[in-house]
Amino acid sequence: MDTSKEKILIIGAGLCGSLLALRLAQRGYQIELREERSDLRKTDISAGKSINLAFSDRGIKALKLAGVVDKVFPLCIPMNGRMIHSIEGETFLSSYSGRPGEYINSVSRGELNALLLDEVEKFENVNIVFNSPCTGIELEQNKATFKVDDTIEGFHANVIFGADGVGSVLRKEFFNQREMLFSYSQDFLAHGYKELTIPALDTGGFRTEKKALHIWPRGKYMLIALPNLDGSFTVTLFLEHSGAKYSFEELNSKEKVVSFFREQFADALELMPNLVDDYFENPVGNLGTIKCRPWVYKGKSLLIGDAAHAVVPFYGQGMNASFEDVYVLDGYIEKYEGDWDKVFTAYENERKKDADAIGDLAVENFYEMRDHVANPDFKKKRQIEMELETSFDYYSKYSLVTFREDISYSEAKKKGNYQDKVLLELIVNSEIEKLDLATIFNKIKHDA
Amino acid sequence: MDTSKEKILIIGAGLCGSLLALRLAQRGYQIELREERSDLRKTDISAGKSINLAFSDRGIKALKLAGVVDKVFPLCIPMNGRMIHSIEGETFLSSYSGRPGEYINSVSRGELNALLLDEVEKFENVNIVFNSPCTGIELEQNKATFKVDDTIEGFHANVIFGADGVGSVLRKEFFNQREMLFSYSQDFLAHGYKELTIPALDTGGFRTEKKALHIWPRGKYMLIALPNLDGSFTVTLFLEHSGAKYSFEELNSKEKVVSFFREQFADALELMPNLVDDYFENPVGNLGTIKCRPWVYKGKSLLIGDAAHAVVPFYGQGMNASFEDVYVLDGYIEKYEGDWDKVFTAYENERKKDADAIGDLAVENFYEMRDHVANPDFKKKRQIEMELETSFDYYSKYSLVTFREDISYSEAKKKGNYQDKVLLELIVNSEIEKLDLATIFNKIKHDA
Ligand SMILES: Cc1cc2nc3c(=O)[nH]c(=O)nc-3n(C[C@H](O)[C@H](O)[C@H](O)COP(=O)(O)OP(=O)(O)OC[C@H]3O[C@@H](n4cnc5c(N)ncnc54)[C@H](O)[C@@H]3O)c2cc1C
Ligand SMILES: Cc1cc2nc3c(=O)[nH]c(=O)nc-3n(C[C@H](O)[C@H](O)[C@H](O)COP(=O)(O)OP(=O)(O)OC[C@H]3O[C@@H](n4cnc5c(N)ncnc54)[C@H](O)[C@@H]3O)c2cc1C
Repeated sequence: MDTSKEKILIIGAGLCGSLLALRLAQRGYQIELREERSDLRKTDISAGKSINLAFSDRGIKALKLAGVVDKVFPLCIPMNGRMIHSIEGETFLSSYSGRPGEYINSVSRGELNALLLDEVEKFENVNIVFNSPCTGIELEQNKATFKVDDTIEGFHANVIFGADGVGSVLRKEFFNQREMLFSYSQDFLAHGYKELTIPALDTGGFRTEKKALHIWPRGKYMLIALPNLDGSFTVTLFLEHSGAKYSFEELNSKEKVVSFFREQFADALELMPNLVDDYFENPVGNLGTIKCRPWVYKGKSLLIGDAAHAVVPFYGQGMNASFEDVYVLDGYIEKYEGDWDKVFTAYENERKKDADAIGDLAVENFYEMRDHVANPDFKKKRQIEMELETSFDYYSKYSLVTFREDISYSEAKKKGNYQDKVLLELIVNSEIEKLDLATIFNKIKHDA
Repeated sequence: MDTSKEKILIIGAGLCGSLLALRLAQRGYQIELREERSDLRKTDISAGKSINLAFSDRGIKALKLAGVVDKVFPLCIPMNGRMIHSIEGETFLSSYSGRPGEYINSVSRGELNALLLDEVEKFENVNIVFNSPCTGIELEQNKATFKVDDTIEGFHANVIFGADGVGSVLRKEFFNQREMLFSYSQDFLAHGYKELTIPALDTGGFRTEKKALHIWPRGKYMLIALPNLDGSFTVTLFLEHSGAKYSFEELNSKEKVVSFFREQFADALELMPNLVDDYFENPVGNLGTIKCRPWVYKGKSLLIGDAAHAVVPFYGQGMNASFEDVYVLDGYIEKYEGDWDKVFTAYENERKKDADAIGDLAVENFYEMRDHVANPDFKKKRQIEMELETSFDYYSKYSLVTFREDISYSEAKKKGNYQDKVLLELIVNSEIEKLDLATIFNKIKHDA
C-alpha cells in the first residue's frame, strides 16, 4: 500500500522515538517528530539521566533492522564482564558469558541519540521540531497540542506514538480516560541514584580496567562504573533515600560523604578526585517500575518505550527493550500494513508480557547485584555457569536475557529462573561436587 | 492529653468518614467534616453506588466500638446463605456457615450513612459542611481548599484524613508528590456492573426468599440480589463491558436485554417487571482494585477507607474493611495519643498487608462466584466445610474473612487458601470418600 500519505506523529525524540522515526521513515510514512528539549547535537545539555548505557543484543538487533548498527559500534566500548571490587579493594572479574563473543557495550546516551537523529534527518519525509513539548492529546480526534515559543498549536495525525518516556503525556491521557479501564502501576525502590565520575588520566587513559562494568556491591548500597570513550567512567551510586544509617538524606556534608566512601569504597575514592563536587552538584534520581495496559487507543495511538514500560536499570535493558519494541512493532507493520488496529493489537498481545518480564527481572537483579554478587554460593554458581557455557549449549539467566535476542524476555525469565533455582539447590545442598558437568547440564536444562 | 484543641479535618462524609468523625468526636477532638455532595438525609439522592451492602462482623466490631451497633441492627436483614439459581430455575441454599449464629446482613447504604451522620451531629465538637468538595491539599502546610458556592476557601487543620473514596483528592496529591515515592496500582476487571431491581409485592412482601443473598452464576456473567427492608431486592448484573457475545455494549436494545435474561436468568426475569427501564436508566459502573503506599504524609495526613484501598465487591468487604480501618486506627490512637506520626506509621504497618489481602481475596472470589459456585467439586467442598464447621472448630476461607473479626485479613487469606488447596485436592483425587470427618479436619488444619 502507499504509506506516503499517512501522517505519523511521534512524541519524543529520545532513543526510542528517534529509532521509530527512522524505521517508519524508511517505510515511507510522513513523519512529524516532536521533542520537548532542544537539539542535543547543538546545545550542551545533559540527557537528564545516565550518561552512558549498556547496549546489547536486543538493541543491536533493532539497530541492524534500521541499518545503522555499523555506525554505532565505533561509539561502543565492549565490557566482557563484571569487575567486582571487595571492601578490601580486591578485584575479581566475572565474565558475562563463557563464550568469547558474548559481551555488552558501554555507549554514550547523547552520542547514540545524536547518531539516530542524524540518520532520521536524511529523510525528506521527516520533520523534526525541537523545543516543542506536547501539552495534551485528544484521543478520539487524534490531535495533539504543543507549546511552541509561547503559543499552543494543534497537530493532527493519522496515528500518534507516545515515545515520550517515563512521564508520558499520552499515558496520562490514557490514565484519565475512564472508559479505557486503564490498568496502571508504579512502584519505587527505597533506593535512589546519583551520578559521579572517575575522570580520565591527563594522558587520556583509563584509571582502572576499561573493558568491564565495575561493581562495588555492599548489601544496602552499591556503586557501579561504566567506561566512556574519552577515558573517563560514569559512576552511579545506589543508596536509600532516607531512613538508613547511610542514605542520601544522611550524607549531607563533605565529611560524611568522604568518610562513607573511605569506609565502603576506598579503592574507588582514590580514582575520584571530584567526588565531593559531583556529589553535591548532581541530583538524586528515583528508581521506578511502571506497568500499564492497554498501550493502545483503538487504531489511533500507541505507547512505546519507557512510556509504556519503565524499568529499573539493573539489567541494563531499558533502552534495549525500547529498541526491541520498534523491532517487534515493525514485524507487525510488515504483516498488517495499512491496518493500524490490527498492528497495535497484535503488538500489544505479544509484547506486554515481555515488558512485564523485563520489569520484574530488573527488580530481581537489583537484589542479586546488591546482595549476591559477592556471596560464595553465587560465585560458585557463576563459575559453574561459565563452565557450562564454555562446554555446552547452555545460557545462564543473564545470558538468556542479554545475548539471546531470538527468545522473548518472558521465556528468558521462565527458563532462567528455573535454571537458577535448580542450580542453587545443588550448590546449597553440596550435591554439586558429586556431579560431572554433563550431569549438571542435564539436570538444569529447562524443556519448555 | 487534652485533645480538644487539635483540629481534625475529615474529607468525605461517606461510610468511613462518618464513622471516623464519630469516633474522633467521642475522643474529644475538634472535627471538621466536609462532604462534596448534599446531605443525603435531606435530598433524595442515590448514593451513587450499590443501594444495599453486605454488612458483617468486621464492620460490626467497629460500630460496636463507636457504640452505635444496636441502632444499626434494626436496619438489617440477615442473610443466612447464598441461594444459587441454576439456569433451569432450580434453587439451592448454600449456608454461609455450619454454625447458626454466623450470617451476614443486608443494609441500605443510605440509611446506614444517615444514621452515622445523625450520631455525629450530636457532638458539639463537630462541624459538618455539605456541598463542599475538596479541590486540593497543601501537604506540608496541612491546608485544604474547598469549593463552597462559587468561591474557594482554605481550611487549615492539625491533621487531615482523606476519607474521600475511590477518587480521593488526598491520594492524588500523594501521587503527584515526587518525593513521596508513591507506589500505586489500579486494576480493572473486564466486567462492569449495573443495578436493577426486584420490586416488592403490592402487599409489601418479598417476591423470593428474603433471608439469602441470591446468585445466578453463569460463568461469563452473573446476577446477584440482596433484600431491602421494604420488600424489594437490589439486583446487580455483572457483565463484560465489551468484546464478548453478551456485553453491556452488545445488549443495546430492549429485545436483546429481554432475550438475554430469558435465556440466562429466566426465573429472575419473572420477578423483574421494570427490567428494561432499569437497564436503560442506570449507568454501568467499573470494577477496580486500587492499592497504594504510603498512606501517610509525615504525621500530617492519612488515607483511609476506599481512598487507601478500593476493592472489587465480591467478598462484600469494602465497607467492612473501611470500618475496620477506623477500629485499627483507634487502637493506635489509644496507644500513642498525641503523636500522630507514631499513630499513622504503626497503623500503616499493620494495616497495609491486610488491605492488600482483602483486595486480592475479592478478585479471587469474583472468579470463584462466577465459575465455581455451581460446580460439583465446589458444592462437595461447601458441603464438607459445612459439616466441619458444624462439628469442629473449623472456619472455611469465607468464614475466616467474614466471621473471624479477631484475625486479620492477611491471616485469613493465608489460612483459607491453604485449607482450600488441601481440601480441593482431596476431592479432586477422590480421596475424600475414604476419610472420616475428624481425619479431614486434621489434614487441612493450618498451624500458622
Ligand atoms: C540511571 C539509569 C541507567 C540506565 N541504564 C541503562 C542501560 O545500561 N541500558 C539500557 O538499555 N537502558 C538503561 N536505562 C534505561 C534507558 O535510559 C531508557 O529505557 C531509555 O532511555 C528509554 O528510551 P525512550 O526513548 O523510551 O525514553 P527517553 O529516553 O526518556 O526519551 C523520551 C523523550 O521524550 C521527550 N519528551 C518527554 N516528554 C515530552 C513531551 N511532553 N513532549 C515532547 N517530548 C517529550 C524527552 O525529552 C525525551 O527526549 C537506564 C536508565 C536510568 C535511569
Ligand atoms: C457495586 C458495589 C457493591 C458493594 N458491595 C459491598 C458490600 O456488600 N459490602 C461491603 O462491605 N462493601 C461493599 N462495597 C464497597 C463499599 O461501597 C465501599 O468500600 C465503601 O463505600 C467505602 O467507604 P468510604 O467512606 O471509604 O468511601 P465512599 O463510600 O465512596 O465515601 C466517600 C465520600 O467522600 C465524598 N467525596 C469524594 N470526593 C470528595 C471531595 N473531593 N471532597 C469532599 N468529599 C468528597 C463522597 O461524596 C462520599 O460521600 C460495594 C461497592 C460497590 C461499588
